[in-house]
Amino acid sequence: MPQLRLALAQVNPVVGDVAGNLEIVLQQAREAHAAGAHVLVTPEMALTGYPIEDLAYRRSFIERSQAAVASLSEQLVQEGLQDLVVIVGHLDRARDIPDRLGVPKNAPVNAASIIHDGAVVARYDKHHLPNYGVFDEFRHFVSGERLQIVQVHGVDIAIAICEDIWQEGPSRAAKAAEAGLLVVLNGSPYEAAKDDERLELCARRAVEGECALAYANLVGGQDELVFDGDSLVVDTRGELVARAAQFQTELLVVDLDLPAATAAMPEPGTRFEGLLVERTIISQEPLPAYEPAAPSVAERWDDLGERWQAIVLGLRDYVEKNGFRSVLFGMSGGIDSTLVAALACDALGPDRVFGVSNPSEWSTEHSRSDAADQAQRTGLDLRTIPIAPIFDAYQDALHLEGIAEENLQARIRAVIWMGLSNAENHLVLACGNKSELATGYSTIYGDAVGGYAPIKDVPKTIVWELAKWRNAWAESRGETPPIPPNTISKEPSAELRPGQRDSDSLPPYPVLDGILDAYVERDLSSAEVVAEGFDAEIVEKVVTLVDRAEYKRRQYPPGPKISKRNFGRDRRVPITSRWREQL
Amino acid sequence: MPQLRLALAQVNPVVGDVAGNLEIVLQQAREAHAAGAHVLVTPEMALTGYPIEDLAYRRSFIERSQAAVASLSEQLVQEGLQDLVVIVGHLDRARDIPDRLGVPKNAPVNAASIIHDGAVVARYDKHHLPNYGVFDEFRHFVSGERLQIVQVHGVDIAIAICEDIWQEGPSRAAKAAEAGLLVVLNGSPYEAAKDDERLELCARRAVEGECALAYANLVGGQDELVFDGDSLVVDTRGELVARAAQFQTELLVVDLDLPAATAAMPEPGTRFEGLLVERTIISQEPLPAYEPAAPSVAERWDDLGERWQAIVLGLRDYVEKNGFRSVLFGMSGGIDSTLVAALACDALGPDRVFGVSNPSEWSTEHSRSDAADQAQRTGLDLRTIPIAPIFDAYQDALHLEGIAEENLQARIRAVIWMGLSNAENHLVLACGNKSELATGYSTIYGDAVGGYAPIKDVPKTIVWELAKWRNAWAESRGETPPIPPNTISKEPSAELRPGQRDSDSLPPYPVLDGILDAYVERDLSSAEVVAEGFDAEIVEKVVTLVDRAEYKRRQYPPGPKISKRNFGRDRRVPITSRWREQL
Repeated sequence: MPQLRLALAQVNPVVGDVAGNLEIVLQQAREAHAAGAHVLVTPEMALTGYPIEDLAYRRSFIERSQAAVASLSEQLVQEGLQDLVVIVGHLDRARDIPDRLGVPKNAPVNAASIIHDGAVVARYDKHHLPNYGVFDEFRHFVSGERLQIVQVHGVDIAIAICEDIWQEGPSRAAKAAEAGLLVVLNGSPYEAAKDDERLELCARRAVEGECALAYANLVGGQDELVFDGDSLVVDTRGELVARAAQFQTELLVVDLDLPAATAAMPEPGTRFEGLLVERTIISQEPLPAYEPAAPSVAERWDDLGERWQAIVLGLRDYVEKNGFRSVLFGMSGGIDSTLVAALACDALGPDRVFGVSNPSEWSTEHSRSDAADQAQRTGLDLRTIPIAPIFDAYQDALHLEGIAEENLQARIRAVIWMGLSNAENHLVLACGNKSELATGYSTIYGDAVGGYAPIKDVPKTIVWELAKWRNAWAESRGETPPIPPNTISKEPSAELRPGQRDSDSLPPYPVLDGILDAYVERDLSSAEVVAEGFDAEIVEKVVTLVDRAEYKRRQYPPGPKISKRNFGRDRRVPITSRWREQL
Repeated sequence: MPQLRLALAQVNPVVGDVAGNLEIVLQQAREAHAAGAHVLVTPEMALTGYPIEDLAYRRSFIERSQAAVASLSEQLVQEGLQDLVVIVGHLDRARDIPDRLGVPKNAPVNAASIIHDGAVVARYDKHHLPNYGVFDEFRHFVSGERLQIVQVHGVDIAIAICEDIWQEGPSRAAKAAEAGLLVVLNGSPYEAAKDDERLELCARRAVEGECALAYANLVGGQDELVFDGDSLVVDTRGELVARAAQFQTELLVVDLDLPAATAAMPEPGTRFEGLLVERTIISQEPLPAYEPAAPSVAERWDDLGERWQAIVLGLRDYVEKNGFRSVLFGMSGGIDSTLVAALACDALGPDRVFGVSNPSEWSTEHSRSDAADQAQRTGLDLRTIPIAPIFDAYQDALHLEGIAEENLQARIRAVIWMGLSNAENHLVLACGNKSELATGYSTIYGDAVGGYAPIKDVPKTIVWELAKWRNAWAESRGETPPIPPNTISKEPSAELRPGQRDSDSLPPYPVLDGILDAYVERDLSSAEVVAEGFDAEIVEKVVTLVDRAEYKRRQYPPGPKISKRNFGRDRRVPITSRWREQL
């Protein structure tokens, strides 16, 4: 069987930074060439970043992406890398589709160009455009109708992009066209507790198609999405051959023995599974036999480790890609802000992390001492600004009581954080968790302010688990656990009135999170939630809270999507709605 | 030619309030029957409201909608209205589509049921699912593949839903099937300066199809959308026969002479334009000739009048449908909050409108006197709470300077409004205009707080035009102009430092709005904007401001969509993006 050395560029581009992304791809080409690779594959839309949303419609952006492809091709020649076959993902434009109502303006396509010897020898346009969950591609792109096969050193390589292998069509067409290798460019975001779905899918497609499969994925944070990398290669039997690390950039190089190309050039107009087949010959002669290098298979994180790394990466990239130097947030001594502090220290290092303690009349002694304990454990900067004099100045004018008075305290704190942010250029972090966000148990323009909300997609029960996981991880490495044990064990309270506890307003968190999982993530009706064994009155209360809090959620900062269904990119419901479950 | 009396129910349903919407439709049926109508047509999704977003995926919501159709059918019999043919829009479920990745969960369809004599005699599922601009229907629904024709008193009536007539297909199929009348159920939102596109389209489809066309549209506000009504009927020559008022509910009743049904029943499996044709006979005999009633053709508003009414309706419905009694906002004496005050008084009446003046050290005398003048002109409630003591309390702790100090003032005001809102149950309005929102010329968590932002889609130059229009309208009716002339004529200032003017930070508003129109609404590159005659340096500055303000815009409250492209529902770009025009 012919051999090929393949390099998968698990890269972290920035949306819109075409010049910077081009340099990233070029650097990968240099390294791949130095490692003796014959083919380099980037993830989906590597030159533009992903997802680009409505930037897809801008003619000038499409042209910038097209120019980057041309420039990549020229640079490869200038640097003597023209023998390397580079398969690069980018934005392009469909040919011969006139602008009309209902067709995305300028007919953008999610494309992969195959570059060799100073020229684009072929282009594949993504066929299946996902438009569910976090994806809006049917909205932004026009679908491609051609299967591209390029022959390299006697191996027929078929190209697909992400969703193309989750649906039927292109992979079947690749089999029908007798390809020996299917390369897939991906922009596949992380999702917790997904098992090893990608490997299973890749293995299945390889076996079905009787070809090896190489899966190159993005890594890095982009707004609410976190791409986890995890690029991989399976052989024709579906066995895992090589795998890149999760949550890190990596150039994965692997040697493969591949089925030799046998098919004749297709007659013009040949279609498999409705796709027009185009085959381009780059080189027909198999390589002389060589000694393959040992493949690398990275270890994967366990479930909590994955979540931790996903949040850390999402936070770091949001800060870095938006040009902030540091983050600032309120440190109440509670478990949520404590967890955010530990995450921020991991993401940025403690010298870029600023905590503010804003004690009020109702703050407990332990909330102050726990925050100070954490500052000492991690080395972050903690300052204290009491709110009493400001609170009194407001109350002289307003005389607020009850919830209005509670919210006032939260909002005074937020104005302080925003003032410090404006003065010192920190990005403010909101520390709310998913259970809070779901039920609206937060103060809009109070604890909900910020530019990014690292744990907004983490249910409270998992907040505690993550805290324990992080401390255990530190202990296993002989480091100081960053989270004060007392913060993990004490009862949660907003401390906005004397003796207040979360359990005054909310059911116990394990119950609450169970109901939220059923109602929000699984879309069950309240009758169905009750049928799962939850108390009907509590279900009714929680469901009403969730439905009423939609407005607050809409103004909450973005944060990394972790769960199957987050409040943000993939759960989209009306603000104004009389939808209520009737029990 | 056979006659028919048609009634179009231009109704204002509430999303999710299926029981309430059912009662609205029933009431229209009673009135239509009393008016002697033979056929009643509701707008798109009248029973569920529109758009329902992800509620489409909830099995229990689909079942509730199905139950409402059954209940409507029964009620019509119970009330002796079973002879009326009711064509009602609702959510339903496609038959025989299994759940799989990429297909909307539970296979929801955007349906129209044809009810007669206590039964659903036929159902049409929308074929063309728009997924551009404000629409996400391909995301939420499964497409129907059948053309429905019902014969009523010897007239073949074909059914279509909204986008179906903006694209080719169903209207051609209706012609091929020789229908005499095409009824179209619509959820078509208002958009300023659209000319009379709908009438032109309806006329064109009628002439093409050699049939009359009846277009029933929703009216009312739903989150960011405002449906303007404007239901209409054209005859087989495309001439306008009847038209309902804009921005009001109405039952439009019209008598038509229609081509007699001639086509034979289609063979099973007959397709026109790819659509499977189904014909249902309700009654074949034409009615005995009767004297038609005079049709009514409502007058339309001019461009500024339309915009005014759209904002008033959007605001009123947002307040009412969310269950608020009143609104509250900061009255700075500037043109923006003054315009919002006048809009709010028109929407709710002055006794439901609460203004707050929060003078600071830098507030001018005229800002106070202009606000007071308006309160007197309109009768709204105005109170004054100076911010100096609170400002001093913050500054004792923070010592902020420059922009941080300016923002502090705006945020203190916001905390006061939110405190009063919490204590007195008002909905807070944000008063920012589109030019401000585009450039980020506002303070996040300051003047940007609120539950609804009535003029967020109105450029500053149009803010002044609307103010003049409203005063002139008052004068034309012998009423007191609600807006103090001094507010219209004075130079705009945020009054956050001594002598501050908008023109210190921004280009003159006519220039700014011209650039924004080109860059935001028409998606031009900055080179193209410059080519339109704008100064390159100013374009560069504005474009940079626009790109950087995306994060602030994301946390801005919702407001009525007025222009072709608003910041909100239909312009979706990444927050994190290094997209910048290079001049």
